[in-house]
Amino acid sequence: MMTLKPEILSVTSVARSRLFHIEQVDLRFSNGKEVQFERLQSDSAGSVLVVPVEGDELVLIREYAVGTERYELSFPKGSIDAGEEPQVAACRELQEEIGMASSNIRLLRRIIVSPAYVNRPIWIMLATDLSVAPLPGDEPEELEQVRWPVNRMWELLEQEDFIDGCNQLALYALGHVMKVLPY
Amino acid sequence: MMTLKPEILSVTSVARSRLFHIEQVDLRFSNGKEVQFERLQSDSAGSVLVVPVEGDELVLIREYAVGTERYELSFPKGSIDAGEEPQVAACRELQEEIGMASSNIRLLRRIIVSPAYVNRPIWIMLATDLSVAPLPGDEPEELEQVRWPVNRMWELLEQEDFIDGCNQLALYALGHVMKVLPY
Repeated sequence: MMTLKPEILSVTSVARSRLFHIEQVDLRFSNGKEVQFERLQSDSAGSVLVVPVEGDELVLIREYAVGTERYELSFPKGSIDAGEEPQVAACRELQEEIGMASSNIRLLRRIIVSPAYVNRPIWIMLATDLSVAPLPGDEPEELEQVRWPVNRMWELLEQEDFIDGCNQLALYALGHVMKVLPY
Repeated sequence: MMTLKPEILSVTSVARSRLFHIEQVDLRFSNGKEVQFERLQSDSAGSVLVVPVEGDELVLIREYAVGTERYELSFPKGSIDAGEEPQVAACRELQEEIGMASSNIRLLRRIIVSPAYVNRPIWIMLATDLSVAPLPGDEPEELEQVRWPVNRMWELLEQEDFIDGCNQLALYALGHVMKVLPY
């Protein structure tokens, strides 16, 4: 079935804060039906989520998340700066968050979460060949680093603080490329 | 390492639209550092993403997403109504979006996407034992239904319009529970 895309009649900025920008979009579907949707706009080119593997260990961080109001276990991640290549952002975030650079970063998956509301890609990367090269980050406190054996990687899915869907997808994408089974 | 949680000094509503509500949170970390974060609040209890399996086929929909401004391939999904159980919401969404009810819905995974900004769980469900039982939905146009053979499920990851990270995670969670390899 070929469906003709809805026609965008207007886009209006309806709310803005320091981080978020909400737009109202007036649309007419090909059947004539008119609706109003809302979406989150972003000035950012997207973000990176980087799976660092050093020897037989994954390197994660435990960081405070104000959405859930608790510490969450995560691979290093962060926004891509204006004009920055995703690979460069990935290496910078590693340096800021775990104090290591990588000379071998490759793309595992490029996703969008909730395309009904946002258009901000997340580049899920695999980083190997790590070396010590810290950069100062903008975190309000030192990040706890967590080393996790690769041969127990699937146990991460059972950790209550490994709840973030993008991190779980990154783990599966790693298992996929490493051809390691979760069962 | 045990890190003491930051103290929340104040929570202020800074922007609100029909769908979104942005809060500013003033925090003091245990090291004394004070910061301002922002997060998205929601009145909703969360949402469901349901993988329907009928015989040897997955049932998906193709729906317009205003974030990306294109049609995206997705498993049925939607918000949980106030007071509604996730299982009930899952069955209702199936009835509204693919016209079928399920007498066998089980939880594959409960996730939060971006806990740094939101606290809205997504219940990823598996639905089998389907029967025809349509309910009127609130979609502006009829949804295209897409049948996808289970034995070609991993090809979904190669589809340009299967870009949503939650849907990809749902596929991996299905493969995990079915013990089907992506390679």
